[in-house]
Amino acid sequence: MGPHPAVAAIRLAVRRVLHDILNDLSSEPSAASGPSAASGSSAASGRAVVAEQRSREPRTAPLVLVACSGGADSMALASALAFEAPKLGIRAGGVTVDHGLQPGSDLRAEEVALRLRELGLDPVDSVAVTVGREGGPEAAARDARYAALDAAAARHGADAILLGHTRDDQAETVLLGLARGSGIRSLSGMAAVSGAGGRYRRPFLQLDRQTARKACMVQSLPVWDDPHNADPAYTRSRLRHEGLPALEKALGKGVVEALARTAQLSRDDADALDTWARQAEASVRDAAGLLECAKLYALPPAVRRRILRQAAIEAGAPAGSLFARHIEEVDRLITGWRGQGVINLPGKVVAQRQGGRLVIRQG
Amino acid sequence: MGPHPAVAAIRLAVRRVLHDILNDLSSEPSAASGPSAASGSSAASGRAVVAEQRSREPRTAPLVLVACSGGADSMALASALAFEAPKLGIRAGGVTVDHGLQPGSDLRAEEVALRLRELGLDPVDSVAVTVGREGGPEAAARDARYAALDAAAARHGADAILLGHTRDDQAETVLLGLARGSGIRSLSGMAAVSGAGGRYRRPFLQLDRQTARKACMVQSLPVWDDPHNADPAYTRSRLRHEGLPALEKALGKGVVEALARTAQLSRDDADALDTWARQAEASVRDAAGLLECAKLYALPPAVRRRILRQAAIEAGAPAGSLFARHIEEVDRLITGWRGQGVINLPGKVVAQRQGGRLVIRQG
Repeated sequence: MGPHPAVAAIRLAVRRVLHDILNDLSSEPSAASGPSAASGSSAASGRAVVAEQRSREPRTAPLVLVACSGGADSMALASALAFEAPKLGIRAGGVTVDHGLQPGSDLRAEEVALRLRELGLDPVDSVAVTVGREGGPEAAARDARYAALDAAAARHGADAILLGHTRDDQAETVLLGLARGSGIRSLSGMAAVSGAGGRYRRPFLQLDRQTARKACMVQSLPVWDDPHNADPAYTRSRLRHEGLPALEKALGKGVVEALARTAQLSRDDADALDTWARQAEASVRDAAGLLECAKLYALPPAVRRRILRQAAIEAGAPAGSLFARHIEEVDRLITGWRGQGVINLPGKVVAQRQGGRLVIRQG
Repeated sequence: MGPHPAVAAIRLAVRRVLHDILNDLSSEPSAASGPSAASGSSAASGRAVVAEQRSREPRTAPLVLVACSGGADSMALASALAFEAPKLGIRAGGVTVDHGLQPGSDLRAEEVALRLRELGLDPVDSVAVTVGREGGPEAAARDARYAALDAAAARHGADAILLGHTRDDQAETVLLGLARGSGIRSLSGMAAVSGAGGRYRRPFLQLDRQTARKACMVQSLPVWDDPHNADPAYTRSRLRHEGLPALEKALGKGVVEALARTAQLSRDDADALDTWARQAEASVRDAAGLLECAKLYALPPAVRRRILRQAAIEAGAPAGSLFARHIEEVDRLITGWRGQGVINLPGKVVAQRQGGRLVIRQG
């Protein structure tokens, strides 16, 4: 008799990603000229760099770490990694991060580390971090967590870190992006492969949270429910417990799947348009390297605005403070020219039209 | 003392669109080579055709009709049209459609027609239609309504028809598209200009529903609340009264605006990618007109899938039945070739790989 369907599902998801990791490690650097490099994926070209570096080192068994909070998603992921990795000659380890935001979080982290060791993972790290305040509590905790994971990967020479984000997390991320109203890049959610050198992998992005929970139950894995996940002070928690259920009630049960599919399609579209904008950018500059308004005007609006946004960022405007309305105002220097003056952008960047050229620079 | 801010807002929105209509009527056909034609907007090239036809006819005062249900949005629109049109030498008329779905709907339509005449509109038509069942009750009513509006425009030689859709309607449309999970085109919502020759215009697409309602109130315009709008049997109604409010509660009050902005950005992006796919399509065919797999492989996934989708539609697959998963399966003939057999698509269309070529045809 085979394993429970939920356990089979989490193992299959992990096995596929481990195969991908092995393929990427053994592939030649020239693999970066394939279609994913053409789509502008920085992860793809990064992976090639990693492969190149490895080929100069003596071969050891690859090491894959799982980032584990002790919650159902990442405990299920850890159990599947512990089961699948040895069969492929991969070493499996784990990292748990103590954010220090709740009393007793240090003991909790030690307990999670203990469980990871019981699953057979080695090495296992429990890392304490200090969460700052920048960008709000969720962003600050995330920044501290990824810094700790990067450091753990460097310390152990890990080839990849698995993250337990599920399709439900992806749906929530898409809705959070939608609320920013800043275009299709923010609808792309989380990538299956991300980080420097394609280090981060998300095997459960197509799997629903319920399957992960079920897999823990049938394997008698104790799981920890982070009280933050149910705290209505957090936007994501409100979305999870109120927003998404109401949307499902109105639109039907397929909403989570539809949101996850939207993420993938939006990501591919955004990659393609970024590629186009990068290619078109050179063709709209004059001999002195200035942007020519007439040539910009002839481009599709979607491509033109991406070039304008990139030019503003290169002039020093912080990407996070540059909103659609800023770019629209600069765009009107091209499409609705009536002698406007200097336009002020974030980061003390100014944009103005001078003699048929668009000048974007530090003011 | 000027008008109430809500009345000023609806009039400004209508005045801008009337100026656009006059510009389009007076512009030369060559206007279609501007940036909106470059973005692949069929409405833009259609407008040029209208302009060309008009320039051969003796000039009469342009006629603009308002489509009016008697609800707050379209009554506000009618009142603003009646006020603004004469100042620009435009004749203003109205059409109300009796869908015959509720007892007494014929009397209701007559009452709306009477109110439109009282506002000074002329001609005013009340048109009864028979609503079929195809595509569900909302789609069938919409199809019947637009057919009646098209016929009214032809009957009176109208240059444009104004529709009262607001930013709130747009936000709902984006969420309905999101639930389909079929990519950014379905996130584009309603266009400000649509239909054959750019006939339909939506002046209130940036205006919130509350402003339209307020404008009716301060002008003492009686409005009719369609009971269908509050009927939970309708998806849009559930979205309006439960889904969107819950989403606003989770994500904040800016959600409606963010959704409307997403619609505009997605539309521009989808137009640009369609243009790219059309241009790339010729370059991936061999001398015999067959699609070459190696050349398709080199394209960004977003462009390649658009070409595959278009090829399937040209082979006879109905666009409405062609889902993302169908295209993904065809795409794997290019990106994951392992000797797959024939792939069946809707409309008895089949796709297969033969000697490095992709053949999509009637099976």
